[in-house]
Amino acid sequence: MFGRIIPREGRFFDLFTETASLCVEAAHEFKKLILDLKNAESHSRNIKVLEHKADETTHRTIELLHKTFITPIDREDIHQLTKEMDDIIDFIEAASQRIILYDVKSVTTETIQLADVCIASAETVKKAILGLSNLKHPEDLIKDCVEINRLENEADHIMRAAMAKLFREESDIKQLIKLKDIYELLETVTDCCEDVANTIEGIVLESS
Amino acid sequence: MFGRIIPREGRFFDLFTETASLCVEAAHEFKKLILDLKNAESHSRNIKVLEHKADETTHRTIELLHKTFITPIDREDIHQLTKEMDDIIDFIEAASQRIILYDVKSVTTETIQLADVCIASAETVKKAILGLSNLKHPEDLIKDCVEINRLENEADHIMRAAMAKLFREESDIKQLIKLKDIYELLETVTDCCEDVANTIEGIVLESS
Amino acid sequence: MFGRIIPREGRFFDLFTETASLCVEAAHEFKKLILDLKNAESHSRNIKVLEHKADETTHRTIELLHKTFITPIDREDIHQLTKEMDDIIDFIEAASQRIILYDVKSVTTETIQLADVCIASAETVKKAILGLSNLKHPEDLIKDCVEINRLENEADHIMRAAMAKLFREESDIKQLIKLKDIYELLETVTDCCEDVANTIEGIVLESS
Repeated sequence: MFGRIIPREGRFFDLFTETASLCVEAAHEFKKLILDLKNAESHSRNIKVLEHKADETTHRTIELLHKTFITPIDREDIHQLTKEMDDIIDFIEAASQRIILYDVKSVTTETIQLADVCIASAETVKKAILGLSNLKHPEDLIKDCVEINRLENEADHIMRAAMAKLFREESDIKQLIKLKDIYELLETVTDCCEDVANTIEGIVLESS
Repeated sequence: MFGRIIPREGRFFDLFTETASLCVEAAHEFKKLILDLKNAESHSRNIKVLEHKADETTHRTIELLHKTFITPIDREDIHQLTKEMDDIIDFIEAASQRIILYDVKSVTTETIQLADVCIASAETVKKAILGLSNLKHPEDLIKDCVEINRLENEADHIMRAAMAKLFREESDIKQLIKLKDIYELLETVTDCCEDVANTIEGIVLESS
Repeated sequence: MFGRIIPREGRFFDLFTETASLCVEAAHEFKKLILDLKNAESHSRNIKVLEHKADETTHRTIELLHKTFITPIDREDIHQLTKEMDDIIDFIEAASQRIILYDVKSVTTETIQLADVCIASAETVKKAILGLSNLKHPEDLIKDCVEINRLENEADHIMRAAMAKLFREESDIKQLIKLKDIYELLETVTDCCEDVANTIEGIVLESS
């Protein structure tokens, strides 16, 4: 009981925005990584640093949640959003790690396309998170959520075409296994963004 | 507050039944697909349509949940059931998509066996969902749940035998990777059915 | 209503400890399995038995939860802990099954290293679970959680080095696919232990 403090609503939104910004940064750094594979290690280290920062922010959010009596939005939704945004950056980091540990020497055009969709998704997540702190324009927020869903569909299409091509054309099975993993991880990044969008949509509906 | 309506309990069960029926239809269409691979694209499109309908029903359930003050069963359980049934059809759709994108030309007997278990599981889920709306015969409901668990075990055994055979006998590694993925997705379909069974069992216990 | 009983707090902690002990036993049996591959079937059956016992304990915990009005810790946390410990043993069992169904004839040094980290993680989870029943030394509990996090990091490093080596050196693609799966499952075991640690940390914070 001792450690509990009076609620300061704004701090939750500050922490959400911090995590969302780290996701955007990581997505950009991932694009840099695949365009500059000879320095992959150094880009990957940068992503690791961002992922650690996100872990810390997540931790601080959960700590704040445990010490706050009255929360600006449902406790369960705060938990959910925090976990889902942390997943976004975790999967970006996982994709970058795979490139390092598989010692990937070249990527396909489709990898770059998927990285671009990840950037767009992360940026729209950040936009939606900023909109969430003041619910004055719920219709804009819903638009952002629809856009995140559209981007997930786009990633899905790119991934499927890329996978079909891989199985048709790639004769080096090790390279096939490597790229298959990376495609799936990048597609999962956009799935995680969609999870955030669905949670935000729920919050908007709840408050309407 | 404005959008909230008085509770109409029946609507939740109608929506659950709708989703369960879509799962059953998708499982049957998947069997048709693997028995008629030359028209795989068209069967796969049918499954996609069913999956979209399930998404809409899920969305309507969540919306109803947010607008209902008093729910017939725990809010958390409604959320859970909805999500878990949506997962069933998502994995059926994922399996059908893999067949398309991997351009699978032939399937094994074990694939057909797994598809049959998926049909039986989905049908038992639908039966249990129908039983849930009136809790007059909880013992029948528990029997359905036990049956779904049994089917999950059966799928597990088929999958394991199929996988062992694949690694022993298949010399085309691309075909091995394709079938391995499809086996795992189909086994996951029965896992999702088991999740539904466990949630239903919890609801029955809670109300007893 | 009829089946409900007065709360007996201790029983939850007894059940948690039972599950945690089963996880520790399974981790040890897994190590025996990989050091004695010619008797893999029999070790794997032992793990299956332990996993079944854990399922029963999980079931009894959920049943107790549904019949208890006032719980010693948050209902949601009990649910979470139970599920997360069940996942630990499920993934150990999955790894042992893969060795059987892939008919693995030899494992790498890294597999043994990962098995050792799984044992250490499971034992620290058990230690933390024992500490949870009396919250007199929250600082010790936090130390256990930090140690579980450290072990997860260690598993991650071993897995990554092992995977890199596999793709560099293994020319038998079937063996590569088999070991890749087993590495990933073992690393997931330590992820599940980390989930338990995070839940325990949340409980400690909540009660402080």
